[in-house]
Amino acid sequence: MDNVGMKPMDAEQLRENAHLMVDFIADYYNSIESFPVLSQVQPGYLRKLIPDSAPNHPESLHNVLDDVQGKILPGVTHWQSPNYFAYYPSNSSVAGFLGEMLSAGLNIVGFSWITSPAATELEMIVLDWLGKMLKLPEHFLSTGQGGGVIQGTASEAVLVVLLAARDKALRKVGKNALEKLVVYASDQTHASLQKACQIAGIYPENCRILKTDSSTNYSISPDLLTEAISHDLGIGLFPFFLCATVGTTSSTAVDPLLELGKISKSNEMWFHVDAAYAGSACICPEYRQYLNGVEETDSFNMNAHKWFLTNFDCSALWVKDRHALIQSLSTNPEYLKNKASEANMVMDYKDWQIPLGRRFRSLKLWMVLRLYGLENLQCYIRNHIQLAEHFEALVAQDPIFEVVTRRIFSLVCFRLLPHHNSEDDGNKLNHDLLDAVNTTGKIFISHTVLSGKYILRFAVGAPLTEERHVNAAWKVLQDEASTLLARDPL
Amino acid sequence: MDNVGMKPMDAEQLRENAHLMVDFIADYYNSIESFPVLSQVQPGYLRKLIPDSAPNHPESLHNVLDDVQGKILPGVTHWQSPNYFAYYPSNSSVAGFLGEMLSAGLNIVGFSWITSPAATELEMIVLDWLGKMLKLPEHFLSTGQGGGVIQGTASEAVLVVLLAARDKALRKVGKNALEKLVVYASDQTHASLQKACQIAGIYPENCRILKTDSSTNYSISPDLLTEAISHDLGIGLFPFFLCATVGTTSSTAVDPLLELGKISKSNEMWFHVDAAYAGSACICPEYRQYLNGVEETDSFNMNAHKWFLTNFDCSALWVKDRHALIQSLSTNPEYLKNKASEANMVMDYKDWQIPLGRRFRSLKLWMVLRLYGLENLQCYIRNHIQLAEHFEALVAQDPIFEVVTRRIFSLVCFRLLPHHNSEDDGNKLNHDLLDAVNTTGKIFISHTVLSGKYILRFAVGAPLTEERHVNAAWKVLQDEASTLLARDPL
Repeated sequence: MDNVGMKPMDAEQLRENAHLMVDFIADYYNSIESFPVLSQVQPGYLRKLIPDSAPNHPESLHNVLDDVQGKILPGVTHWQSPNYFAYYPSNSSVAGFLGEMLSAGLNIVGFSWITSPAATELEMIVLDWLGKMLKLPEHFLSTGQGGGVIQGTASEAVLVVLLAARDKALRKVGKNALEKLVVYASDQTHASLQKACQIAGIYPENCRILKTDSSTNYSISPDLLTEAISHDLGIGLFPFFLCATVGTTSSTAVDPLLELGKISKSNEMWFHVDAAYAGSACICPEYRQYLNGVEETDSFNMNAHKWFLTNFDCSALWVKDRHALIQSLSTNPEYLKNKASEANMVMDYKDWQIPLGRRFRSLKLWMVLRLYGLENLQCYIRNHIQLAEHFEALVAQDPIFEVVTRRIFSLVCFRLLPHHNSEDDGNKLNHDLLDAVNTTGKIFISHTVLSGKYILRFAVGAPLTEERHVNAAWKVLQDEASTLLARDPL
Repeated sequence: MDNVGMKPMDAEQLRENAHLMVDFIADYYNSIESFPVLSQVQPGYLRKLIPDSAPNHPESLHNVLDDVQGKILPGVTHWQSPNYFAYYPSNSSVAGFLGEMLSAGLNIVGFSWITSPAATELEMIVLDWLGKMLKLPEHFLSTGQGGGVIQGTASEAVLVVLLAARDKALRKVGKNALEKLVVYASDQTHASLQKACQIAGIYPENCRILKTDSSTNYSISPDLLTEAISHDLGIGLFPFFLCATVGTTSSTAVDPLLELGKISKSNEMWFHVDAAYAGSACICPEYRQYLNGVEETDSFNMNAHKWFLTNFDCSALWVKDRHALIQSLSTNPEYLKNKASEANMVMDYKDWQIPLGRRFRSLKLWMVLRLYGLENLQCYIRNHIQLAEHFEALVAQDPIFEVVTRRIFSLVCFRLLPHHNSEDDGNKLNHDLLDAVNTTGKIFISHTVLSGKYILRFAVGAPLTEERHVNAAWKVLQDEASTLLARDPL
């Protein structure tokens, strides 16, 4: 009775086939500019190209790679293209890729310390490293009462801290008081907070979405917050959670952490900061100011998978009091009990997150930090910000466009000026321009709406982007704008 | 202004370094049996070996790989070792690894269809393939009102369906009725259900944990369930969710889906099936019987990352009514709006899961199905079950051991018979035996407790395990038992 038939994990088969895959991927990067950045396929395209059921017999890697080339790649939106300027970037890098490979190679499941001590310990250490690079307060480091943990996404990060805060509040006001708990954020806060509230059962009418406008460059007004809290206290509600953002998704607005921290402290609220995108920039001394006040927060999150060369997914979350997290998220079934955990000698990250299982994600962050080093990473960030400045200058020089918000990091919010000064027309015009440029396949940008205006977002941050790509992108925008305006002149 | 300094995503650097990494990983598999299966390091070992902070300047891959070999691998518990028999397996394979590489290589973030149509469409197609292999009912396929989705883990799968069920129930009984909602499961149900209930705010006293015992081989008694529901209805509570298991974590118990389905249907409860481990076996006609009754369920989950050669993470969830999921989990912020989603022409998997971002995980499952094919996968499963049968026979032949529960799949629950017929002694004895065998580093097994008895679990399922490994493991168990008994004879 031998392992008959195939050998699914033969080292030499792995070697041979994985070398082929390396070349396939390297060739992909060599040809990445030949693809439309935004996939141009129609909904349902793939079902027409792929059989209805799995094969009974094995197929060759050669055939599968042919299908990747011919059937999958046309349906891929190329996030790593140097001409990708949409949403926020999601960086790959040689180091991040190597770390992902190694993690997949070991394929351990690090839910408890015992299931691979190195996975837990490297994560603690590497998040301490990154915390120090960001000059986070001491209490966020694993040597104190807090610590860092890698979550999959910022959505999971805000959910776990919201749950910890919810349960802490319910222990205080009584477990039947869910309907009294109030969350504060702004209309610029990422939708993941709304989703976290839905999941945690926070009443939708208790989510205070503070309005922002251009007068604060779309950041939260501390006065509005104070007012809202007073009002809620007055009607017997219980303010318990504040989410601020450093670098909002729409326009990179930065909420004033120092002032918000004072307010949340005096109201004994959990104060969370979402710096998913802009956190990376704060490793540069000249951008660290945007984190001033982080000392007064309870939790802080940045996505190393956005603008920090670490392949998706790697969302770094630090908390001041890890016990609050563990109290909400731990389970202790018999089949997972072990000496190290029972003796309370170790951290078990399963109790810091939603899922039980977890990949060895710290490897890729560790490799990024070691293979590039702090100074290179700072240069990398600064280069993108310079490219964004350059784009901003191009927009500003063209009288038919305008830069809409003050640029802080590597995102430029701009638009084609409306016809006849009509905002409705302006919105349609920019919507059409977005559609036109993305349909060229030459670049991919995305949009938002600020104060009722439809705005185009140009987010620099793909690892391969150089000045020539920014210049070419601007030319695409100008050309498509001209074509649009020629159809319906100003 | 060029991309000065490093080139973080240079195709030729990727090629050169990734080839090195392939060889490192292939060499790891060649030498995997030379490591202790369970890491033998002490808590805190790594901090002594690694600097306090990230380097300022880049280091070489050579140095990093030396550290992986010298510092990380000693802290790894080798889940892919052929001598790994703990918990449940978590399979890697050449195909799964290649799929993970390709996904990391493309590094797209497929939250909405538009962000990479192929990622969404391949996932729909491949989960239809797998659904057909498992002979799941038509309504679980994406061509109807349901569909499949890849979650990270079974914990996330049960959480998302619990949330959908909770919100559906609250729409019926009123949003303030959370305290009335009751969940049913057994004392053998995975702890992830308890965690999901904590997250969703279900009252702990409303979680009915039905007792099981050896009389039903640790599966749920439909009579007990009916009784519990009647009682709850009688006191004005609202039964809304039933979780059954095909292949429990402790002992692979199989709950009777057909009878439970009838009960949940007549009470209009959401019926979820967790087949995280044993679902894989059900691709073999001779094991498909354990899914009889799945026609009456609302959701079904199996982990392709356990026993199906697909690298962690890949947990396949099918739902009958995808709209229930979407209703609970969707958000629609302006910055993610796009033509295809607005026109309702596509699925956006962000609304089927907790996180927003998601990896291109269907690639690895697709590659496993294509590079191995159905027949090989069936052989793979059967081979492990035969090896478990073989181990069971070895245990049964030895008068100082006993097989504790009826073996169904590839897990054998057994123990060293207690001294002097004292259960307390028996528990200590088996606890000590577990510790002793795991400390040898030669094998890794885990334990559970059933009806107060401490039981050893021998789970066959690592891709490299052959008969010789099972025989050697049995010898380690016999030797360590002899040593223990010599110290304290029967």
